[in-house]
Amino acid sequence: MAVRYGDDMVVVDCGLMFPEPELLGIDVVVPDVSFLVEHRAQLRAILLTHGHEDHIGALPFVIEDLRVPIYGTEFTLALVESKLSEHKLLDTTRLQIVKPREPFQVGSFKVEYIHVTHSIVGACAIAITTPGGVVIHTGDFKIDPTPTDNRPFDLHAFAEYGKRGVLALLSDSTNVDRRGYTPSELAVRDRFDDLFANAGAGRLYICCFTSSIHRIQLAVEMAAEYGRKVCFLGRSMENNTGHAHRLDFLHLPDGILIRPQDLRAFPRDQVTVVISGSQAEPMSALARASVNNHKHAAISEGDTVVLSSRIIPGNEKAIYRMINHLFKRGAQVVYETDSYPPVHVSGHGSQEEMKLLINLVRPRHFIPVHGEFRQLSLHARLARSLRIPNLQAHVAEDGEILEMDQNGMDRVGTAPTGRVFIDSGSMDEVAEDVIVRDRRHLAEDGIVLPILAINKATGRIQNAPEIVTSGFVSPILADGLLARARELVVESVASAGPEESGDWSLIKERIRRDLRKYLQAQTNKRPLVLPVILEV
Amino acid sequence: MAVRYGDDMVVVDCGLMFPEPELLGIDVVVPDVSFLVEHRAQLRAILLTHGHEDHIGALPFVIEDLRVPIYGTEFTLALVESKLSEHKLLDTTRLQIVKPREPFQVGSFKVEYIHVTHSIVGACAIAITTPGGVVIHTGDFKIDPTPTDNRPFDLHAFAEYGKRGVLALLSDSTNVDRRGYTPSELAVRDRFDDLFANAGAGRLYICCFTSSIHRIQLAVEMAAEYGRKVCFLGRSMENNTGHAHRLDFLHLPDGILIRPQDLRAFPRDQVTVVISGSQAEPMSALARASVNNHKHAAISEGDTVVLSSRIIPGNEKAIYRMINHLFKRGAQVVYETDSYPPVHVSGHGSQEEMKLLINLVRPRHFIPVHGEFRQLSLHARLARSLRIPNLQAHVAEDGEILEMDQNGMDRVGTAPTGRVFIDSGSMDEVAEDVIVRDRRHLAEDGIVLPILAINKATGRIQNAPEIVTSGFVSPILADGLLARARELVVESVASAGPEESGDWSLIKERIRRDLRKYLQAQTNKRPLVLPVILEV
Repeated sequence: MAVRYGDDMVVVDCGLMFPEPELLGIDVVVPDVSFLVEHRAQLRAILLTHGHEDHIGALPFVIEDLRVPIYGTEFTLALVESKLSEHKLLDTTRLQIVKPREPFQVGSFKVEYIHVTHSIVGACAIAITTPGGVVIHTGDFKIDPTPTDNRPFDLHAFAEYGKRGVLALLSDSTNVDRRGYTPSELAVRDRFDDLFANAGAGRLYICCFTSSIHRIQLAVEMAAEYGRKVCFLGRSMENNTGHAHRLDFLHLPDGILIRPQDLRAFPRDQVTVVISGSQAEPMSALARASVNNHKHAAISEGDTVVLSSRIIPGNEKAIYRMINHLFKRGAQVVYETDSYPPVHVSGHGSQEEMKLLINLVRPRHFIPVHGEFRQLSLHARLARSLRIPNLQAHVAEDGEILEMDQNGMDRVGTAPTGRVFIDSGSMDEVAEDVIVRDRRHLAEDGIVLPILAINKATGRIQNAPEIVTSGFVSPILADGLLARARELVVESVASAGPEESGDWSLIKERIRRDLRKYLQAQTNKRPLVLPVILEV
Repeated sequence: MAVRYGDDMVVVDCGLMFPEPELLGIDVVVPDVSFLVEHRAQLRAILLTHGHEDHIGALPFVIEDLRVPIYGTEFTLALVESKLSEHKLLDTTRLQIVKPREPFQVGSFKVEYIHVTHSIVGACAIAITTPGGVVIHTGDFKIDPTPTDNRPFDLHAFAEYGKRGVLALLSDSTNVDRRGYTPSELAVRDRFDDLFANAGAGRLYICCFTSSIHRIQLAVEMAAEYGRKVCFLGRSMENNTGHAHRLDFLHLPDGILIRPQDLRAFPRDQVTVVISGSQAEPMSALARASVNNHKHAAISEGDTVVLSSRIIPGNEKAIYRMINHLFKRGAQVVYETDSYPPVHVSGHGSQEEMKLLINLVRPRHFIPVHGEFRQLSLHARLARSLRIPNLQAHVAEDGEILEMDQNGMDRVGTAPTGRVFIDSGSMDEVAEDVIVRDRRHLAEDGIVLPILAINKATGRIQNAPEIVTSGFVSPILADGLLARARELVVESVASAGPEESGDWSLIKERIRRDLRKYLQAQTNKRPLVLPVILEV
């Protein structure tokens, strides 16, 4: 989203999306920024509301083309820093830490960050005062009356802007179909208390989003109370808690932290493992532990595994598959149901919070953001139902250019939009080697489809695997190469553990990883590898 | 599930599954019945609890191999009849209508059907009295205190069996992670009342599962009350309501029904359309109407579309995509959220109903059925928590053979299990031509993968489409064939309407249908056609 007045333009957030299942072999989707590149002379800044992937994740893929300073709060920029550093883009990018209630100038705009409550620390709304009026973008928010860090939602700042007059409010539509108020983060504490009290002689695993520092803090506090050590497990969990601890957002009592390799040395009833993998990502710590394929985290009879997170739509089957594996290991598994106190609460406000915010800000123009068309439509209707004099609510789609002032709003055109697909290979490789594959690139390196029939009962390959390629190498070259590739697929499946064998997504990830490594070494190409498994 | 004593064996239900997204191009999955075929001499009957697809859908694919009579209630067998007739299997199959509380003999077993409440009419539990004890299978159930047809759940029958002693209870685990009671079907009436009252000048579309005769009856009654005509739209909606009306399960006031082709002739505020497509199946009536591609049902500004159904896991993205299309048409869309009164209620009982049933039956052995491992585990734990003397709860997986009597239970072996994949082509073709494709068949006809890059902005094909084949026809034969197939793909995409173009699943279905028709006509083969779309 870009805000422009005269010759000044700023961009709010720069996120990625996870692909729909139709997009086989694509790992992430980032926005097409050609409009911004074209108008780069006007572009003054990227302003980040908070550090979630859908708000910062595209930066490594677009920042080189935009070459513009990035503003954000301390924790947000710590996450950005680690991302840019992985992609070796840190030296060439200017990061500017900002604080709520400390306005600064960007071109002809005055920009002020406003503290909001959300499931990540350092989340803010952004008020942009332009010569044409004030534009407020909420970022993601809920209005939590009892945030665990005692930093309340800054109602006063919104009220002040509302009093002075706001041209446009762009507000988070995620939970518009939920009535009432979203429960406070504090509601989870009661459930955690209960779970720690009943964890008995087993290990207690708590899995949550690795950026949910509030939630992780809660787990640490309860662990301290119940005399359990804490072990952070999984690459992004270790990284994120490291950043948060260094920046003083995460408080760890002395001596509570133990290293993954020391886990075994502690009695099971004296340990809490805070682990990543809430979406059952195939290479994540919890997904691996669930099939007994993690070197430090063996899950046994009597352990408790708590999934303190929501199921992102599209991940249901993978997550439930992981939960089944955990039950088979004999663990007590606790996940989000309609039970109360909740094991997870949303970071997005419900209808009453949305209404409260609109009533505080009373904008001339209201534009719902974040959500599909259905959510935007419902949010616009919600805003209209408040009957605020002069308020106009507009549903805008990606790419639409809206021109507005106090008199009205015009849809003046469309910027090119679209999505760029990124196939980053297996999750393990992200750190060393991320490749942006647009269509051209794909056409160069082609596609390799290993197709195999796996016997469900034995987990073994039924027939010799087929490998279909397109646009990869010439048929003459391919012969010997693919013969070895076929063997490799067989070996790859054979080396899977017994439980892994029953799980298609793990097997496919394994085949994909092995085959890519081999093909790249042989041909110096990185074709899209799409394993197709037929179970018989 | 089979029950065997001595030389007598009966099977309870014979359902199909819908495939996981990993199984590209596979439409339905049916069980491997080789164990039953091997022991066919002992097989006396298939007993059906009710007529949902996951309980009867596999019959057309296995009945020829089993050649055994099928028992069920009137409505269940009406659905089976229509299924078998489509597959030309009706003449060779014996269907036996049974009634609750009218026991009959099958081999050495006495079988009694017990009326339960569920989201389909004619749903029953089955009590099988064997020389070794009584086995009760609940089928799917909730305990609805106010069923819309006034036929209550037969608590007394369960109580009587419980009093006399039951060896084993197999019970529906679907909603084991929901607390309390599932709301009555009657709860939906209040919501419908509200929706009819507020439908204003527009058409009112109500979409629900086509077997939900109670729900459809409710829609008809409200339509009568509000002076709207009723039009049933969609092939399975028309079929199922036809059966239900003929068998007197669905009551239609005189003159209320209008034909799809007459829809246009009635003012929009005098019509209710009861339509199929709640899961956004690509060729369903509602999915087509949502992209303005249905010849009778044009959805306009001011219409109301009610999705009175749950989202089956895995269908989220497709359904939300359809809802977005409906919003773009200007419709008011109502779907299941946390609002009350509910627009949909589950047909499966929650924890308190499960406890009530176990307390009535007080079995020696309790075996959870219907659900993934996690649900079975939780249900077994729920049963143990009731502390019924001598009750043992067992979690069993597909294929396990349990031998039990009053003294205990042994796991004595494993029957071969597995799944057979069926690729029935496009939904439209089901009626004329359904093909069972097991692995052998697949190997014979091969795979064809049209791979194309579609420009998101224009909906047009970016480059000439690639077609990859494997095991289909010899490369020499393939040349001319595939050149034309490539053109066909281009034409197929070009002929899609503007909104269809934005919807991958519709485009893929279109390509698949056209390509299959062509390839079959040319080669007399039916390869698996798996369109791969890369959006650029």
